[in-house]
Amino acid sequence: MKATAVSALFQTQFPLVQGGMIWCSSWRLASAVSNAGGLGLIGSGSMYPEVLREHIQQCQAATDKPFGVNVPLLYPNIEEHMNSIVELGVKIVFTSAGNPATWTSWLKERGITVVHVVSNSKFALKAAQAGVDAIVAEGFEAGGHNGREETTTLCLIPQIREALNAGGYSDLPLIAAGGVASGGAIAACLALGADGVQIGSLFAAAEESSAHENFKKAILEAGDGATQLTLKELTPVRLLKNPFWQAVQEAYARGASPEELAELLGRGRAKKGMFEGDLNEGELEIGQVAAQISAVKSARAIIEQLNQEYHQAIGRLK
Amino acid sequence: MKATAVSALFQTQFPLVQGGMIWCSSWRLASAVSNAGGLGLIGSGSMYPEVLREHIQQCQAATDKPFGVNVPLLYPNIEEHMNSIVELGVKIVFTSAGNPATWTSWLKERGITVVHVVSNSKFALKAAQAGVDAIVAEGFEAGGHNGREETTTLCLIPQIREALNAGGYSDLPLIAAGGVASGGAIAACLALGADGVQIGSLFAAAEESSAHENFKKAILEAGDGATQLTLKELTPVRLLKNPFWQAVQEAYARGASPEELAELLGRGRAKKGMFEGDLNEGELEIGQVAAQISAVKSARAIIEQLNQEYHQAIGRLK
Repeated sequence: MKATAVSALFQTQFPLVQGGMIWCSSWRLASAVSNAGGLGLIGSGSMYPEVLREHIQQCQAATDKPFGVNVPLLYPNIEEHMNSIVELGVKIVFTSAGNPATWTSWLKERGITVVHVVSNSKFALKAAQAGVDAIVAEGFEAGGHNGREETTTLCLIPQIREALNAGGYSDLPLIAAGGVASGGAIAACLALGADGVQIGSLFAAAEESSAHENFKKAILEAGDGATQLTLKELTPVRLLKNPFWQAVQEAYARGASPEELAELLGRGRAKKGMFEGDLNEGELEIGQVAAQISAVKSARAIIEQLNQEYHQAIGRLK
Repeated sequence: MKATAVSALFQTQFPLVQGGMIWCSSWRLASAVSNAGGLGLIGSGSMYPEVLREHIQQCQAATDKPFGVNVPLLYPNIEEHMNSIVELGVKIVFTSAGNPATWTSWLKERGITVVHVVSNSKFALKAAQAGVDAIVAEGFEAGGHNGREETTTLCLIPQIREALNAGGYSDLPLIAAGGVASGGAIAACLALGADGVQIGSLFAAAEESSAHENFKKAILEAGDGATQLTLKELTPVRLLKNPFWQAVQEAYARGASPEELAELLGRGRAKKGMFEGDLNEGELEIGQVAAQISAVKSARAIIEQLNQEYHQAIGRLK
């Protein structure tokens, strides 16, 4: 893969970021991705403060390459997480699911590179105005929490690129997320005007991912139409269609209120499914590209394959 | 744009098909696209048999280049349409919204090139087995009727390419549709493994489109999140969010049954909106890329711009 503004910003070999996913993105995954030439991210959304500190320290011991921490602003413990990040000398933070203005200046004053995840042009501009160093534009096909506009990656990248250009931010690096699990999709995103990609689902199924073996197996078995964006009345989330998802659909069918849906969702469903491997009762967050994932591989093998496929795709365009 | 299996199949300069859209794709639009190097399609879905005959004859008078007819199999008059197509010597037919096995052999026995539109791998294989000459894979972001799996173009193209390869159809030309309104998106689709693209929304707003001026103006004004895939209990359809769409959402909020939704939809809504320009009461079918369309241009100017953007996008990959 070619060097871009994204690989220059993060000082990585490839313009490729591993998504900082709850219950999957441990120090083991993040350091493996960074050691293989991408940017690994620890997913702090599922971690207590002391757990995050441990993962940062383990990651520092496991790689001398750059890595970062993803902080979804809708979870608790944000202030403690941010303090740990600064104290332990993490150099890169991705924020998501919240207002980019809340933490960007504070982090940048402390010498940290800040990236914010958005799903529409309005928030891309808001993030640019808040002073972020790059933007992740995440499309409808992505796993986990997602935007209400339902704009797909193919549409979102040119729209955000155009909005940034019009707003005077034509040099701001743009990272495409959602629907990327092949080198062809990486080439596609660069052709659309992105400077790099963020890959989640493919790394959720990686050897080094802390996802439960049962969940990884479910990802490999997922086919066409195996996921759906649901619970839009709460926070929209893309889930694998399992018995818990089925229970949500039955709640809809009987006209359940948002309060009833929230009660059905309860607490700890994602941990139960993704980390403890309960495929019936758990919430399984994964992207549409699960249909393209057919083997558990090491992060290094994944990146090597992406690189090879990328060059094949470029060859198709000549 | 480079020559591919799609431009070879249709004998066109570019691997680019104009979608055969109801109320937009008249002989005027189809012949203008064909004359500019793409493949123009007449949209028969909104035409009575005698109207389709007239459009075919006018198109033949307006161009000596190849053109085709799109026949959505969910509308009435299919048999009369097919007989007109054969009698008047049309050489290319795109079928959609129905079983590919119903008409493919009949058309091919009469020397006609047949293409079928699908939105999942299962139907892609079914179409291949029925003997089609190419497949259009249409993603979730496309306007009008759409698949229940909600798979986006970025995910759908690699999945269908892979399914066709595994099924022994690796040479079958694949056309990407949904979310394509720029040369960058064309390059993206080719990088993903498509051999060409089908473009709808951008041509719905073309000078030669028979869409009402009010509808074209509404397309230009559409921004982020301006459309939604709705009426999933009937036939899923992507609509511009206008007062009619709002009425559908209010019906959902009060728990309307599919029968009530069908009654609310009624008959003739698409004509009222797209052809007669009633932006309040009409049904306005358009893709997410409406947000990227900012001017009404001739089909020739559109294709020239796509070609220029395509080369810029290829340049970005080098």
